[in-house]
Amino acid sequence: MISRRGFLTGAATVIGAGAVSRAGAAVLPEAASNGDAKTNPPPLPPNGRTFHPVVTLNGWSAPWRMKDGWKEFHLVAEPVIREIAPGMYAKLWGYNGSSPGPTIEVVEGDKVRMFVTNKLPEQTTMHWHGQRLANGMDGIAGLTQPPIPVGKTWVYEFEASRPGTFMYHPHADEMVQMAMGMMGFWVTHPKDSQQFRVDRDFVFLLNAYDIAPGSSTPQTNTMLDFNLWTFNSRAYPGIDPLVCRQGDRVRIRVGNLTMTNHPIHMHGHTFEVTGTDGGWVSKSARWPEVTTDIAVGQMRAIEFDATALGDWTLHCHKAHHTMNAMGHTVPNMIGVDQSGIIEKINQLVPSYMSMGEHGGAMNGMAMPLPTNTLPMGGGPRAVWRYRNGRHVYDGESA
Amino acid sequence: MISRRGFLTGAATVIGAGAVSRAGAAVLPEAASNGDAKTNPPPLPPNGRTFHPVVTLNGWSAPWRMKDGWKEFHLVAEPVIREIAPGMYAKLWGYNGSSPGPTIEVVEGDKVRMFVTNKLPEQTTMHWHGQRLANGMDGIAGLTQPPIPVGKTWVYEFEASRPGTFMYHPHADEMVQMAMGMMGFWVTHPKDSQQFRVDRDFVFLLNAYDIAPGSSTPQTNTMLDFNLWTFNSRAYPGIDPLVCRQGDRVRIRVGNLTMTNHPIHMHGHTFEVTGTDGGWVSKSARWPEVTTDIAVGQMRAIEFDATALGDWTLHCHKAHHTMNAMGHTVPNMIGVDQSGIIEKINQLVPSYMSMGEHGGAMNGMAMPLPTNTLPMGGGPRAVWRYRNGRHVYDGESA
Amino acid sequence: MISRRGFLTGAATVIGAGAVSRAGAAVLPEAASNGDAKTNPPPLPPNGRTFHPVVTLNGWSAPWRMKDGWKEFHLVAEPVIREIAPGMYAKLWGYNGSSPGPTIEVVEGDKVRMFVTNKLPEQTTMHWHGQRLANGMDGIAGLTQPPIPVGKTWVYEFEASRPGTFMYHPHADEMVQMAMGMMGFWVTHPKDSQQFRVDRDFVFLLNAYDIAPGSSTPQTNTMLDFNLWTFNSRAYPGIDPLVCRQGDRVRIRVGNLTMTNHPIHMHGHTFEVTGTDGGWVSKSARWPEVTTDIAVGQMRAIEFDATALGDWTLHCHKAHHTMNAMGHTVPNMIGVDQSGIIEKINQLVPSYMSMGEHGGAMNGMAMPLPTNTLPMGGGPRAVWRYRNGRHVYDGESA
Repeated sequence: MISRRGFLTGAATVIGAGAVSRAGAAVLPEAASNGDAKTNPPPLPPNGRTFHPVVTLNGWSAPWRMKDGWKEFHLVAEPVIREIAPGMYAKLWGYNGSSPGPTIEVVEGDKVRMFVTNKLPEQTTMHWHGQRLANGMDGIAGLTQPPIPVGKTWVYEFEASRPGTFMYHPHADEMVQMAMGMMGFWVTHPKDSQQFRVDRDFVFLLNAYDIAPGSSTPQTNTMLDFNLWTFNSRAYPGIDPLVCRQGDRVRIRVGNLTMTNHPIHMHGHTFEVTGTDGGWVSKSARWPEVTTDIAVGQMRAIEFDATALGDWTLHCHKAHHTMNAMGHTVPNMIGVDQSGIIEKINQLVPSYMSMGEHGGAMNGMAMPLPTNTLPMGGGPRAVWRYRNGRHVYDGESA
Repeated sequence: MISRRGFLTGAATVIGAGAVSRAGAAVLPEAASNGDAKTNPPPLPPNGRTFHPVVTLNGWSAPWRMKDGWKEFHLVAEPVIREIAPGMYAKLWGYNGSSPGPTIEVVEGDKVRMFVTNKLPEQTTMHWHGQRLANGMDGIAGLTQPPIPVGKTWVYEFEASRPGTFMYHPHADEMVQMAMGMMGFWVTHPKDSQQFRVDRDFVFLLNAYDIAPGSSTPQTNTMLDFNLWTFNSRAYPGIDPLVCRQGDRVRIRVGNLTMTNHPIHMHGHTFEVTGTDGGWVSKSARWPEVTTDIAVGQMRAIEFDATALGDWTLHCHKAHHTMNAMGHTVPNMIGVDQSGIIEKINQLVPSYMSMGEHGGAMNGMAMPLPTNTLPMGGGPRAVWRYRNGRHVYDGESA
Repeated sequence: MISRRGFLTGAATVIGAGAVSRAGAAVLPEAASNGDAKTNPPPLPPNGRTFHPVVTLNGWSAPWRMKDGWKEFHLVAEPVIREIAPGMYAKLWGYNGSSPGPTIEVVEGDKVRMFVTNKLPEQTTMHWHGQRLANGMDGIAGLTQPPIPVGKTWVYEFEASRPGTFMYHPHADEMVQMAMGMMGFWVTHPKDSQQFRVDRDFVFLLNAYDIAPGSSTPQTNTMLDFNLWTFNSRAYPGIDPLVCRQGDRVRIRVGNLTMTNHPIHMHGHTFEVTGTDGGWVSKSARWPEVTTDIAVGQMRAIEFDATALGDWTLHCHKAHHTMNAMGHTVPNMIGVDQSGIIEKINQLVPSYMSMGEHGGAMNGMAMPLPTNTLPMGGGPRAVWRYRNGRHVYDGESA
């Protein structure tokens, strides 16, 4: 958990600016950094207009400063180490110490100034997915701006003109940079803080990595055969629960920046999609669902009443996406009698062990895993819990 | 076709119970078994509240018994042999002799007791996809229950509280067990049997297998490159027609438990999606479609008026999904003059034959196929036929 | 740009007819041919009922002749050479000199007669995707008609009974023939030319090819790992801009005939899906979006007000789909220090060069490309431009 004081005194980073003047650089807002992967309690807005903050699953929201009527944030694109789940670390690229970067929260009508500093080994830009803004602020390298060189800072300015849910990600070498984990959530809260009000408001991004067992850097050229399908760069058992009180009205906003559709399925309740990155869905247009298919580059806000007590899973319904570090080319040995073979192989290779003769549930089997590799099976999934009389967001204390 | 008597006297299976007491085991309901792959005529409900039964494409509905106000079903998870199409058999896992298992049909408000017996070589559970029930009945191994051990029976109880369309499938080693064919349909009919009434009501599941030519057991680790995309574990030409009268109001309910989206396309008519596994879609929210994209873990009920006479196809629009036993790495020889080569190879290999020089339509070519392998091309697709004055469900007699 | 005179005097093709009589063959309508890949200005209807023509991105609309109250078109299925982008040519199959074939534009209520001549090396048929017609006109080889033999012409007749957006493609050896580029757009304009009126109305199809670097014929057995994801068989930088005036009401109709979903994302504006190949979506059912997922075999018409000036991109949000000629198995070298290795390898292979040590943005690197191969990166995407006071459709003159 990061305290407000932590933002001010922690691993803050202020670097030389490119697009901003030397005088400007001296007054760059602090870039808070946060390297842990816990679900941080949402900070109440210290200034500016009030809003009900969202909770970022296994993540955090960025602080800002008010300056001459502008809300200023500072994002630093940089290499980060992300704990995917306890015992497994990935070398990613992110923002301000984490992948995904911090969630940006502003209020409808805010004038926003975003400082983006490039501490990657290659050029980048920032695209504000879903925002209405001037063409020059759209962040498309080679079309609306030159790329941000290594070591330089670029400034984007626009008014957060409509409330809703958005994302940010690079639009320069985007295939590589998104495969390395560069992305973040953006929420523009409504001017009237009672509008669209819910009791719980969670956000996370779907991302995917191809990290070979025993290694830690994603293969960025992989188009299809990923082996880690993650929620905010976390996999089972590293995904915190989404904790609610029974009776709460709950919203979960999910964005997809992988390479395939993810049908997000919720147990024990039905829900409606009430918003997209294009705006809020009118009541007449909503469908009742237990599974909503989220395409790449889409955001879906789902809402429901948390009526039933218990631990209910929320997961992508593609069964392979719930298997960590899964190899998809291992042959199926179901029904193959390996008993005779094993003995013979054991004469040659003493530690040889048969696998999968009775199916895939390997409880009780103790195969040594490569270094920095999660066991197959069981994730990723968020569990959302209903508790009475408590109001906590942190998985460990829930 | 299975007669009601067949349900009672056929290959019924009652085995030792685990979670049920010894006394309980003695009174386990009979587990009807059905190993053929024909579209069975729907049985009228022999007791309990009345409903208009659905027709399961190349499948059947499970019988039940009423006991002390509970509707009791008995599903047995077990290895099965499934005829994918005439001449090709797969070694799958299913329920009660078939894959998919039998369709469960109950009425809104029914108290339902499901006995699930595990005759697989590994542990399993049952998840009642889309149902609202107590958390302990949700069937998630390691979260809401321990897995059902080999040879044991587990009992689930809940009220079928809302009408609609659901599925059942394991939530233990689910990647393997669904890839082996473990799944089934569930319909909760409305209390008022005239509500949502249609003239024809068909159901089937989309599933997929990777069965190498000449073999019969699916590769359960395959994530993407399946070679058999099936309707209820059947492929062309093994898929029965969906027979209607001209003018009928027709509903087709389709669930997807594969690893990718299937855009189901209908010829000659337009339709609307009127229901999902989350409930019924209000009229104001419906879209006119000729193709609806069904994501993994989704159910879509489509409805239309059968106005035009003829044989119209209903198929997934991904062209490769209509090719049986398709190998996706064979190089393209279109435009490559193979004539000189053939002669030279024939001096070495007398039976060598060129392939695909003019395209892929191989009518008239007679290449020997591996054992237990369907020829490429042509399936799967359901043909739905409009006939006047007949009211039959069986493909062969239609 | 093709003039009307060009249609009448150009490379027209009239060949021997099969299904039509010898007398009929003599009066086959001219089959206009167009081999260039420019966005052609839409021709105003020379006869028949009036309509507001669409603009086909990097394509053209077919001319017709009126005969005894029938609107007659002549499509010739044949091998074509398509420029994918400047410097890269593909050997495809298409219609009338191009892939996709020309857009067909008719008016609601038109009686339409389609002559389809087969100049391919194998049999084919034509399916009129989304149309309501007699079963025998549906074009399914082996079900509703025999295939059209090589060298023969088939005639289809039906009334364009409902306004909307449709496609045409073969339904014989469809996996191969669509992978070779055989497809086209079809628009049935409303009887009342003011209905559904917009200022700009663009159409294009999503298609995909697997053309190995240095070669020019697609691998038609590829199911998943395509390397050219194209708009109307064009890739970046060969895709023309969609030029509008500020304030225009714009419609873009997009159909998908690839093997996967494409989430089409628009910058700087929000839109609604107002139509599908099933009909027009009622206002109550529409969702606000910035990304709409278009499944295979679906058409989506999106509409928006072109409010913001500038160059805005329109692209599939799957990042790999914007990379030309992308190889998906190249390992990631980010963070791998290759300096020592390079020296050693250079002693053996003088021209060896390290790649990707700092990421994927290779600006300034000059690696020799194979013949007929596009460089990685940057496409495909359409840029749509807002200009004041001009009303042009051609990219080069915009």
